[in-house]
Amino acid sequence: MDRTIDSGLARLKTKLLSMGGYVEKAIEEATGGLVEGRMERFARVHEIEITINQLHKEVDEDCLHLLATQSPMAKDLRTIIAVIKINTDLERMGDQAVNIAYNAAEYMREPPIKPLVDIPRMAELARSMTRDSLDAFVQVNSELAGDVVSRDDEVDQLKNQIFRELLTYMISDPKRIEQALNLILIARNLERVGDHATNIAEDVIFIATGKDIRHGGAN
Amino acid sequence: MDRTIDSGLARLKTKLLSMGGYVEKAIEEATGGLVEGRMERFARVHEIEITINQLHKEVDEDCLHLLATQSPMAKDLRTIIAVIKINTDLERMGDQAVNIAYNAAEYMREPPIKPLVDIPRMAELARSMTRDSLDAFVQVNSELAGDVVSRDDEVDQLKNQIFRELLTYMISDPKRIEQALNLILIARNLERVGDHATNIAEDVIFIATGKDIRHGGAN
Repeated sequence: MDRTIDSGLARLKTKLLSMGGYVEKAIEEATGGLVEGRMERFARVHEIEITINQLHKEVDEDCLHLLATQSPMAKDLRTIIAVIKINTDLERMGDQAVNIAYNAAEYMREPPIKPLVDIPRMAELARSMTRDSLDAFVQVNSELAGDVVSRDDEVDQLKNQIFRELLTYMISDPKRIEQALNLILIARNLERVGDHATNIAEDVIFIATGKDIRHGGAN
Repeated sequence: MDRTIDSGLARLKTKLLSMGGYVEKAIEEATGGLVEGRMERFARVHEIEITINQLHKEVDEDCLHLLATQSPMAKDLRTIIAVIKINTDLERMGDQAVNIAYNAAEYMREPPIKPLVDIPRMAELARSMTRDSLDAFVQVNSELAGDVVSRDDEVDQLKNQIFRELLTYMISDPKRIEQALNLILIARNLERVGDHATNIAEDVIFIATGKDIRHGGAN
């Protein structure tokens, strides 16, 4: 049995993980810059995104090359298909980090709204889901992946709560509407980061078990 | 040369197109319900989304089956990889239609803000991009696909304009903040529909030419 595919898959996983590390870093710079009021961190987000986009192309090319040259089967084939999808999700998480940096920079044009509501908590949750979804991928750990999927509800609830609080704030202080709107958009971006981490976790479960759990399906 | 793959690819394309038709219909029901003030159309969006999700799983399974049994090469391989990605985009466009229906239903709990600003125009643009990206896919027409990609800027500009108008509206009439916010979120959802149509168009260019034009790249 030809296992030259193993070294190809190992290199692919390493590259995807490096990409995941950049995505985490981009989210950290964007949300950290907001929380600390340090706008210079946003420039880093844009630099990192360029690297993410380059890796995005490379991973796609590597997958195509493996499919064309190795005719992978079963779990190897599922892994490559999952990598193609995870690659897309990571690239879009990079886009979300850029959106967050943009909205945060807009927000910081005025003195801050004092509490930032629960955005730091939501950012930490989205980041931990990102990290865990990638750890689950490396370990092909469907239990950890399932844990990520279950945390998505928490992100959604947090977003709804943040929306309600900021809406009340807007109504009570219309001069701050634009700022509150920027925070609402940031919460929305973080929700999407959580959605992408959930997609990755679902792909890990597919690699591990061959089961497609999306849309609440049993197979 | 074994061309049993041709019939498999033809069936796959037909299924993907049928899915695209449902996505278009879902966007039409969601935005049409908003424009006409007919909330009953939103129930249809949820019904259609169930079908989209079912097709989403089937298309993924079909792609995996073709890859495992046919060892496709060159353009056939690129087509299947592109179908996997387009499938993801279509499924998420279905999610956006559901989000639009949700925000539109929230919006319609109060008497409408009179002009709906440019949302109907943005909805029509997003829908036409969806249709054209799928037409480009069927015809493997990279010129039409390029046209879709170029229209994405128009969608973004329209969204920015809608944001500015609604922000001004919120500040002048704080009682309507929640409604205006729902329209802002709908504009954001439509922007995402346009983004997904653009992704599809980029995949068509990849099928046709083997070139990856994403991130402004030349190959």
